[in-house]
Amino acid sequence: MSNTNPARGMRDFLPVDVRKREYVINIIKEVYESYGFEPLETPAVENIETLMGKYGEEGNRLIFKILKRGEHEKTGAADLALRYDLTVPLARVAANYKNDLPKFFKRYQIQPVWRADRPARGRFREFYQCDVDAIGSGSMLVEAELCAAASEILQKLGFDDFIIRINHREILRGMLNAVGIADEKQADALVAIDKLDKIGKDGVLKEFAGRETSEQAGIKLLDLFARLAAIGNINTISTLSEFIGEDEEARAGLDDLKQILEFTNLENIKIDASLARGLSYYTGAIFEINVPDLAGSLGGGGRYDALIGMFGKEEIPACGFSLGLERIVFVMDERNMFPADLQNSSADVLVTIWNKETIAESVQLANDLRSQGLRVLLYPEADKLGKQFKYADSINVPFVCILGETELTTNKVTLKNMETGEQETIERGQASEKIKK
Amino acid sequence: MSNTNPARGMRDFLPVDVRKREYVINIIKEVYESYGFEPLETPAVENIETLMGKYGEEGNRLIFKILKRGEHEKTGAADLALRYDLTVPLARVAANYKNDLPKFFKRYQIQPVWRADRPARGRFREFYQCDVDAIGSGSMLVEAELCAAASEILQKLGFDDFIIRINHREILRGMLNAVGIADEKQADALVAIDKLDKIGKDGVLKEFAGRETSEQAGIKLLDLFARLAAIGNINTISTLSEFIGEDEEARAGLDDLKQILEFTNLENIKIDASLARGLSYYTGAIFEINVPDLAGSLGGGGRYDALIGMFGKEEIPACGFSLGLERIVFVMDERNMFPADLQNSSADVLVTIWNKETIAESVQLANDLRSQGLRVLLYPEADKLGKQFKYADSINVPFVCILGETELTTNKVTLKNMETGEQETIERGQASEKIKK
Repeated sequence: MSNTNPARGMRDFLPVDVRKREYVINIIKEVYESYGFEPLETPAVENIETLMGKYGEEGNRLIFKILKRGEHEKTGAADLALRYDLTVPLARVAANYKNDLPKFFKRYQIQPVWRADRPARGRFREFYQCDVDAIGSGSMLVEAELCAAASEILQKLGFDDFIIRINHREILRGMLNAVGIADEKQADALVAIDKLDKIGKDGVLKEFAGRETSEQAGIKLLDLFARLAAIGNINTISTLSEFIGEDEEARAGLDDLKQILEFTNLENIKIDASLARGLSYYTGAIFEINVPDLAGSLGGGGRYDALIGMFGKEEIPACGFSLGLERIVFVMDERNMFPADLQNSSADVLVTIWNKETIAESVQLANDLRSQGLRVLLYPEADKLGKQFKYADSINVPFVCILGETELTTNKVTLKNMETGEQETIERGQASEKIKK
Repeated sequence: MSNTNPARGMRDFLPVDVRKREYVINIIKEVYESYGFEPLETPAVENIETLMGKYGEEGNRLIFKILKRGEHEKTGAADLALRYDLTVPLARVAANYKNDLPKFFKRYQIQPVWRADRPARGRFREFYQCDVDAIGSGSMLVEAELCAAASEILQKLGFDDFIIRINHREILRGMLNAVGIADEKQADALVAIDKLDKIGKDGVLKEFAGRETSEQAGIKLLDLFARLAAIGNINTISTLSEFIGEDEEARAGLDDLKQILEFTNLENIKIDASLARGLSYYTGAIFEINVPDLAGSLGGGGRYDALIGMFGKEEIPACGFSLGLERIVFVMDERNMFPADLQNSSADVLVTIWNKETIAESVQLANDLRSQGLRVLLYPEADKLGKQFKYADSINVPFVCILGETELTTNKVTLKNMETGEQETIERGQASEKIKK
C-alpha cells in the first residue's frame, strides 16, 4: 500500500468540485466570447529558455523544471519546464504565428499553471488561470474592455461587491522619482509597495530600509497613499498630477487612466496609486479585482508592450487580464453562491436488474430512456433489489425504474420516486415523461 | 529573439483547433453523462512513486520527471513526474477517497497526459485522453456499457465504419500456454503479438525468436489468428474453446466475452484473439476501436482488477475505456467531418470607431448588442474607416456596424453585410435583429 494523496500543493477534484469549476469556466467563456475573444491552448510544458528570465527573480525560482531523458537524465540537467503563467506562452505564440493571426488578436485561455510556491490555505502549486488578452493595439479601449468583461463575468457569477483597482507603471515610476528613489532601486521599491496589504505600513518601511532605499521616501509615499485612500478618482488624478510634476511619461500614464475611466461605465473602478503588481513584464496600466472577504485578489493584469518583442522581431503592444479560478470558486463556496442543482445526482434514474437472465432487457430499457434525453444509471450486476435501492439512495438519484418479474411479462415498469417513496406501475413508454416531470 | 516554437512533440492550438477539440469533447461528455458517468480531474503532476512501476518497462522510460527544487535541485534527483495516463491517477483516487465515493463509481476524465516518446506523425508528447471507468463491479455489464458508450460517441461524431475488437488477457494466457510458452516468457510474447499490425507476421516471429520464446509457438499462434480472421464471433468462440482446452481461467475469459456480446446490441464488435494491448495492468477483457484509414486505434481499454489494490488496502474491480482526442480529431479533419460553422469568425459583428471623441458611444453600442446575445468585436482604436473594413474582412466577420458622423447625430447605425456588400442605415434598436437573421 502506498501514499495515495495527491502531490503536495496539488488537488484532486471529485465530481461536485469539477461541476462547480465548470460552472464558473462556462460563464467566463460565454462573456469573453461575447467580446469577440477566441480560445487558445498551449502546451503545459515549454522549453526552459522560453520561461526563464521573464518573471523576475522570484518567478525563476518557482518554475518546475523537467529532467532531460534517456542517457542525459543522469546529468541532472533540465531542458523543459512547466508553464508558470499563460502570458509568456501567449507572447511566444504571438511571435511564432504572427502571419497567421489577425492584426488584432483577442484570445482567452483557461488552463492550469504550476508554481513551486510554499503551499498554504488557498495557495496551490497547480491552479487554473482564466486569461484574456488583446494583442496589437496600444489603445486604452483595450484596457477598458478587459475591465468591463471581467466585471461582467463577476456580476454574472453573482458578485456585487468587487472593486477594480487600477494604476500605471509609469505613474509608479513617476512617484518613485518624485520621492528621490534612483532607477536601479525602483524594482525593489515596487516589490515592497506590492506587499502593503500583507505586511502593513511598518512592514513596507522596514523593506525600504532593508533594501537601501531611503525610509524617508517610503514615508512620503505612504503618506500620499493615505491621502488618496478616501478621495474619488477625479481628485486622485489631480493629486497625483501635482505629486509627479513635469515627468512626461508619468503624465501620459495619468492620461491613460483618465481614458480607461472614460471608456467604461463601471462604477466600481478606482485608481489606487499603491497598486504595484509583482510581475516584471508590465509596462503600462495595471489592474486588480478585489472583494472584501478575500486577502488576495480575484484577478489582475495589465499592459506588457515589450514582452512579445522578447520573442519576435518587433515589439507588439499587448494587454491582458487573468482571473483566478480557485479563488473565485473559494469565495463562491464560502458565500454559498453556487446553484443548488450542481450538488444533485449525476443521473436522473437508476434502472434495476432482476436476475442474470434479464440483464439484456434492462440494458434495452436504459438505452430507450437515454435516447429520450435522460441520464440513466444501470445497476451493474444482478443483485438483491434491496441492495439496488440502497445504492440508489446513497447517490441521491431521484427515481428508480424497476424491471421485475411481473413488469417483464407485461412490458411495464414500476417507477419509484425516491424522495416521496411512492411507486406506480406504468407503460414503459411513459417512464421518461414521468421522470422529466 | 529566441526560439518561438512549442517544445518538441508539443503543440499550440489556435482558435479553430480549439473549437474542433471542444466540439469532440462536448459530445464525449454528453454521451458519458447520459450513462451516468461523473467528471473527475486530477493534477498533472504526481509523486514519482505513484507512477513508477505501473506501466511496464517501456512506460517507466517514457515518464517525464520533475527535478527537486531549491537546494535539492543540484542533486539532479526527481521527486515528481507528469502523469502518463489517467488510469493510475484514478486508481490512486479510488483508494484515497474510498469512503467518499459511491460503491460503484463511474467517472469520466478528459485531460492531457505526457509521454517522452519519439515524436512522429500523429504521435505527440502531450495528448489528451478521454477516459471513462467504472469501479466496484466485476460484472461484464460494465464492459458492455463502456463499449456501447464509446460506440455511441463515435456515431454521434459521424463515424460509421469503426470496429470494436475485444479479447481477454486470460484467453491470451490460455493460448500462450497451449502453444507451450512458459509463464515468465508470456509478457514478452504479448509485447510481440501487440506489434502484429505494425511489424507483420515475419516481424512477430523474429521477436519471438529474439526473446527466446519458441518460433514454433509463434507459428502456431499466427496460424490460429489467420484462421480466426475470416469467421464470425460464434465460430471464433468455438475455435478458441478448442484451442485453449481445459484451462479454467481461459474458459472463464471466453464466458466473459460471450456475456459482453450478449449485453450489447452492437453489430460492429468482433473478438480478435490477436489483440494484446501494451499496458501491463490489464487483467481481463481488453478492447480497442479502429477505423480502416488509421494505423493506430481511436481508443482502447480493458479490465484492471488488481491496480487499485496496489494503492489501497483491498482489491477493487475496475474497467475502463480511453478515447484518443488527437486521433479522433485527426481522422475527422482528414475526412472533413467537422461542421462548417466551426470555421466561422469568432464574432457576429464588428462595431467601428468614428474618431477619438466618439469612442464611448461605440462602446455603448457594442454593449447594447452584446446584451442582446451577439458576439461583438469593437475595433480597438480610432482609425480610417477603410482600415476597419479591411480588418473586418481579414477575420471574416459577417457584419460591420458603422457609427459615423451622421449616424451619431441621428441615433442610427449603418449595417454592412460583408458577404453581399449591401449596407443600410437603420434605427439602432433594429441592428441586432438584422444581424441575427
